Amino acid sequence: MENQKIPTKIYLSEDEMPRSFLNLKAFMKEQHDPFLHPGTLQPCTHADLEPVFCKELVAQELNCTDKEIPIPDELINFYKMYRPSPLVRAYCLEKILDTPAEIYYKFEGNNTSGSHKLNSAVAQVYYAKQQGLKSLTTETGAGQWGTALSMACAYFNINLDIFMVKVSSEQKPYRKAVMETYGGNVTPSPSNTTEVGKRILAEHPTTGGSLGCAISEALETAFSKEQCRYVLGSVLDHVLLHQSIIGQECKLALDKYGIEIDTIIGCAGGGSNLGGLIAPFMADKIEGKNNIRFIAVEPASCPSLTRGKYAYDFGDTGKMTPLLRMYTLGSGFIPSPNHAGGLRYHGMSPVITKLYHDGYMEARGVEQTKVFDAAVMFAKTEGILPAPESAHAIRVALDEAIECKKTGEKKKIMFGLTGTGYFDLAAYMAYNNQTMTDYIPTDKDLEEGFATIPAIPQNR
Amino acid sequence: MENQKIPTKIYLSEDEMPRSFLNLKAFMKEQHDPFLHPGTLQPCTHADLEPVFCKELVAQELNCTDKEIPIPDELINFYKMYRPSPLVRAYCLEKILDTPAEIYYKFEGNNTSGSHKLNSAVAQVYYAKQQGLKSLTTETGAGQWGTALSMACAYFNINLDIFMVKVSSEQKPYRKAVMETYGGNVTPSPSNTTEVGKRILAEHPTTGGSLGCAISEALETAFSKEQCRYVLGSVLDHVLLHQSIIGQECKLALDKYGIEIDTIIGCAGGGSNLGGLIAPFMADKIEGKNNIRFIAVEPASCPSLTRGKYAYDFGDTGKMTPLLRMYTLGSGFIPSPNHAGGLRYHGMSPVITKLYHDGYMEARGVEQTKVFDAAVMFAKTEGILPAPESAHAIRVALDEAIECKKTGEKKKIMFGLTGTGYFDLAAYMAYNNQTMTDYIPTDKDLEEGFATIPAIPQNR
Repeated sequence: MENQKIPTKIYLSEDEMPRSFLNLKAFMKEQHDPFLHPGTLQPCTHADLEPVFCKELVAQELNCTDKEIPIPDELINFYKMYRPSPLVRAYCLEKILDTPAEIYYKFEGNNTSGSHKLNSAVAQVYYAKQQGLKSLTTETGAGQWGTALSMACAYFNINLDIFMVKVSSEQKPYRKAVMETYGGNVTPSPSNTTEVGKRILAEHPTTGGSLGCAISEALETAFSKEQCRYVLGSVLDHVLLHQSIIGQECKLALDKYGIEIDTIIGCAGGGSNLGGLIAPFMADKIEGKNNIRFIAVEPASCPSLTRGKYAYDFGDTGKMTPLLRMYTLGSGFIPSPNHAGGLRYHGMSPVITKLYHDGYMEARGVEQTKVFDAAVMFAKTEGILPAPESAHAIRVALDEAIECKKTGEKKKIMFGLTGTGYFDLAAYMAYNNQTMTDYIPTDKDLEEGFATIPAIPQNR
Repeated sequence: MENQKIPTKIYLSEDEMPRSFLNLKAFMKEQHDPFLHPGTLQPCTHADLEPVFCKELVAQELNCTDKEIPIPDELINFYKMYRPSPLVRAYCLEKILDTPAEIYYKFEGNNTSGSHKLNSAVAQVYYAKQQGLKSLTTETGAGQWGTALSMACAYFNINLDIFMVKVSSEQKPYRKAVMETYGGNVTPSPSNTTEVGKRILAEHPTTGGSLGCAISEALETAFSKEQCRYVLGSVLDHVLLHQSIIGQECKLALDKYGIEIDTIIGCAGGGSNLGGLIAPFMADKIEGKNNIRFIAVEPASCPSLTRGKYAYDFGDTGKMTPLLRMYTLGSGFIPSPNHAGGLRYHGMSPVITKLYHDGYMEARGVEQTKVFDAAVMFAKTEGILPAPESAHAIRVALDEAIECKKTGEKKKIMFGLTGTGYFDLAAYMAYNNQTMTDYIPTDKDLEEGFATIPAIPQNR
């Protein structure tokens, strides 16, 4: 490792940070199918969405033409507190694998929210503040998104109501404590503060709640308050748009050292990290400027891309959202208790869905114990304890690098390290104690999920 | 905040990283009093210490002449995985305080151990590996040091036995899980694996253990194994030596932008962070090249500098260590259950002790709730949830900046942000719920502690 030309960590200067979000949709030859209003089955308009989301975010959601959307200075100033994030050359990992491949990873975990979620949280709160909104509502399961949003709301002085899945709020009191420290009002869901919550509690007094129910409570609360909107941390186009700063920083860092990447790997739950990581590289690929392989990695236990259906479906189990054309396991699919909570989602972002459907990307499902094998090896070698979600990408990066050892290929592999595992230690304990199990849904499990996909004309 | 000349985060390039540890002792006009062998009361020799600590670390411990000690390349390569750490200009904090002061902080929390402890852990393990040792032992209370050492031992493939205070290992199962993920063997102390542990368990079957007892078990285990030594994470001179990379990076970053600091503030438990942070600046002060104020901040509940005695005392409650001339509350002093576990130590590093005694530094004791007021304000403004230990330095930095607002002085203030508070959320919960209490020892409490200082001739 003497006389390295490429440093271990490539940092951009703050002057080099991207000044615009990159709108991948404006590069795509075909757009994904439009969101449909669940009542009329007609494409959603600005007017349909603006009572739910803040105005600028709706405009971004429906914008398929502007390639770049400028990032306001105030937002840049917040980003400077924890960005640019490093692009790391995994020298130690390469050495221990004895691979001819070069491995790079973009590390998004160096902030108190512990993941890339903060990138979109702060953008969404900024635009809400600009619109003069006083408060926001959201739901959170494992708590990453709720933490990121609490941090952003504390900074911009906006009130935040977070509906946290009750069982999670009981199992993860420390996650709740972080959000409360930043001033977020955390309500275990279902609660008595909403009609939908009361109804569910009446029917199921002992329920531990679900993300679907928490979304419904957050939506109802947003509608019931003045100057209030609902915000979401993944899946939607505007979230992927904000996350494009990840990929843009990667590209600038690689270009600085003349590194031409062959393979880009990212974990995929709702698709926000993956969509942001690949944005500028995929834009170039669509324009014929590169031939990069893109690999989306999902849990074998929740295989929306690799085993799901390409269909219009609801975004939530409560069936309150517009219909989205996604790879989906059905909004009624119940994912197994896999430890990567952020990847336990029945569907996939419409943008990622479309790119995969049109052959621009590959997808791979991986089993939980193999993911943790990779996570622990990575932690011991590169020093960072990864989030279980991120470890899905590590697993496939290792597999690719090991394959290069066999073939002798000097591939340049990059993956997204979306976050740290500091709040996921129950998962690591299960792995250390060898009590971790792999769940792979049977065809029958999948059929039950598919049966919950709405029976509407799917081919438009 | 337009057209900032000084970026929010000053990063050095990896080429600019310090290549030597800076030995502050070689600059001091007078050395601290020597360690004494507790049996003979004679100064400890290399031969006295080498059965306990690895050879190179003993050499460093007793080296008062070499101003610089080169950092081996393999160690530099490890440091590159998480260093250089950023020196941050706290623009947002300055704005919200509306102060004419400039505030800077050196952030050491961006690694999985969550604190500066990793800097010395990896150095100590490296030298142990060079000596051909097969295993190491240590104790840990709150777990930061045990985590850092587990990471270093995983990287260098050395076996590690960690004696963790039993009550901590029960209260913090996740801290234990991190260490185990990195391969550390964690034994709750007291245990049945040592004679001293068995003896204590026989006398006090239900005890939750103490750091003093854990040290004794770690020492006994180190003596009982072949090719094994004991390692310690603070207080000793070689630990402060390794931590000098913190201060050296600060100085390089400041010099790059021509910033002349007026005040440097650091929290002080055993003194490792503070000693490292101030090293190059204090060296210059001793040589008359600057007139910087140095402020050590300690909890009002454990006030070794501000209310302790300048005396020879044991480093541990078990009275097994050599005698050190320290500011001390007595090795039998029982600190209150303050949440800043890393600052609950009865004594102070001999180097810091000597500098304070000779008038080169100031010290200040601060109360817990005021510390958390500062911590939460900092988290909301600068985005980082600080460790309770680090928040002691934040408190005094805020006080100094607020004072500047009154006087109009444009002071340049720098403090050490030693780590993150992700494993300290029980403390934040207590603060949020307003169940946090301030403990200030009475004079009588202190007298009881002082009575445990050994009755030996103190003036040599």
